[in-house]
Amino acid sequence: MSEVKTVKYSFEKLRDFSQRTFEHFGVPSIDAKLASEVLSMSDLRGIDSHGVARLHTYFDMLDNGRINPKPNIKIIRESLSTATVDGDNGLGLVVGPRANDIAMNKATEAGTGWVSVSNTNHYGIAAYYVIKALEKDLIGWSMTNTTKLVSPLWGAERMLGTNPISIAFPGNEEPPIIIDLATCAAAYGKIEIANRRSEEIPEGWAIDSKGNQTTKPKEMIDGGALLPLGSERDKGGHKGYGLAIMVDFLCAVLSGANWGPFTPPFALRQEIPKKSVGKGIGHFFGAMRIDAFIDLDDFKNQTDDYIRTMRSTKPAPKTDGPLIPGDPEREAEKIRSKEGIPLVEPVIEELNDISAKTGIPFD
Amino acid sequence: MSEVKTVKYSFEKLRDFSQRTFEHFGVPSIDAKLASEVLSMSDLRGIDSHGVARLHTYFDMLDNGRINPKPNIKIIRESLSTATVDGDNGLGLVVGPRANDIAMNKATEAGTGWVSVSNTNHYGIAAYYVIKALEKDLIGWSMTNTTKLVSPLWGAERMLGTNPISIAFPGNEEPPIIIDLATCAAAYGKIEIANRRSEEIPEGWAIDSKGNQTTKPKEMIDGGALLPLGSERDKGGHKGYGLAIMVDFLCAVLSGANWGPFTPPFALRQEIPKKSVGKGIGHFFGAMRIDAFIDLDDFKNQTDDYIRTMRSTKPAPKTDGPLIPGDPEREAEKIRSKEGIPLVEPVIEELNDISAKTGIPFD
Repeated sequence: MSEVKTVKYSFEKLRDFSQRTFEHFGVPSIDAKLASEVLSMSDLRGIDSHGVARLHTYFDMLDNGRINPKPNIKIIRESLSTATVDGDNGLGLVVGPRANDIAMNKATEAGTGWVSVSNTNHYGIAAYYVIKALEKDLIGWSMTNTTKLVSPLWGAERMLGTNPISIAFPGNEEPPIIIDLATCAAAYGKIEIANRRSEEIPEGWAIDSKGNQTTKPKEMIDGGALLPLGSERDKGGHKGYGLAIMVDFLCAVLSGANWGPFTPPFALRQEIPKKSVGKGIGHFFGAMRIDAFIDLDDFKNQTDDYIRTMRSTKPAPKTDGPLIPGDPEREAEKIRSKEGIPLVEPVIEELNDISAKTGIPFD
Repeated sequence: MSEVKTVKYSFEKLRDFSQRTFEHFGVPSIDAKLASEVLSMSDLRGIDSHGVARLHTYFDMLDNGRINPKPNIKIIRESLSTATVDGDNGLGLVVGPRANDIAMNKATEAGTGWVSVSNTNHYGIAAYYVIKALEKDLIGWSMTNTTKLVSPLWGAERMLGTNPISIAFPGNEEPPIIIDLATCAAAYGKIEIANRRSEEIPEGWAIDSKGNQTTKPKEMIDGGALLPLGSERDKGGHKGYGLAIMVDFLCAVLSGANWGPFTPPFALRQEIPKKSVGKGIGHFFGAMRIDAFIDLDDFKNQTDDYIRTMRSTKPAPKTDGPLIPGDPEREAEKIRSKEGIPLVEPVIEELNDISAKTGIPFD
């Protein structure tokens, strides 16, 4: 396993380059700023797969007219605590934050706010949205469905997205608990990395195109599928499958977006499904006012106690004991905000390609 | 593996015996009827661990004054879409349905309703509550925290409950999708069965008292712990751990109930934790009016399409292809409502013991 060569770039430089790239396609400055903020947070938190490494895909989609740079984002139905939003095929990085704002505003009046979104696209990291809610002392929820990549338990093909769930709870002296998990056993990015390094993957991650479990990453990539969280029946694979369905329903069936195998892909090279059952992909946001349930200070103090209690768990052998959800990302942010974002050569090449095509200076 | 001997009893007989048992302790008839309905649904749906097999524990808890037979269930805080309920240490089988009703009523006005409950006890199967919501064309959510049994990832002791999540979506011509999953890899009941049969358990289910993975059920029972869904870091064990925390927060930190290792046990023989951080255990219920988001008929037709699409997935080798969440329970209900509920000898003995102590005729 050879060390991958990286070059570090400042967070601000990457954020500004992203913003100018979006603006190049006519995305209004205020939206371009928002979109670049979502991407940057991903880079800062160490989720490399969802930051500027995706910028070229956004570039392609905008360049090919597959994403609307100036969407007219609309509430198409609402109640005191809910709204259904049509994203007008805008950037998910813009539609997502706007819909999340609607959920948070609803919570102010009704105690909670819940927004299901159709006609949208890839929205970055799910955690971005719940972190925004934390800033207002709200419990935020964020989910999205995604392009098919995961097989149902006992299936032999891609039928579901990686359909992440994120939720966060604020502490007082302790940092917040930030849960952000895809409902599959392992991320596709890990399969790609293993493939590039010609390494095997653990059992329980993937099946080949015939539906048999495989430890060869290439067999998953060539028409295989990821397995749901739990991997197999014995270990709760039906549970990960159930959670993926839950996310699909809240994001897409409830909003009128595409679901399951009919979600449009987020890449030019991937085939567009022959059947459409809705508009674009879907997101789901929730915001809960803590003080609608209990005193905010009491809640935050209990969170502190909760975190300290879990950290004091007797550690399993050869470990430092349990982490708190959000710890690894917080650690990455501490380092990267000082030292910069490490980019691998292929990502730098993509950014240079955007620079060459748009005239926006990069390197 | 020898076939376990069972005797079949009619659903109605068991339900009525349960009701009379609750009434014996002064539980008002209307509440006793409700509680026995929750237990019976579990037996009907094939979840043997949560039906009359638990009646003796309820009996013990009532007999020892550990559960209040006549609780004054109160809303202690509310907003348009939320309520916090104090269950006054009543039966979870009574407090749960009442709190679920509050969530459903809130949804009528506000589009959604969300209720966090403290000072309550074991509430039966999580699916009962979402099935009640289905009867009103609502999307129901149900969660509860439970006595500690599960270790955090990288921990070596019991710190969390099995903390289940249930949610359901109604179909039109197809039956509803009913998701009901504990956030651990495997149920404790499976460990007990393997232990009785002197069989090994699969890797990924449990750790021993030192925190090492074990395939010996007895090592888990004697001071070990269950593993969270995902089992280990590589396969997403941090995700199951995160989901368990989510349930704990929504049920207990938000309501003022006990959480994590401080949840009181639901059995006389288990030790009561030395520290208390709230009242009783906690539940969380949600109800979402579908027509607050989208036309109800459109939603139900999409559910039908969703179910048919998933059923048409290419099957994995040696399987009949993916199931829909709720299928196994529906199948059990079909058989058991005709043929009766099969009870094993130890459960029959417990019911006879209740009969002897209360004078309520059973066998």
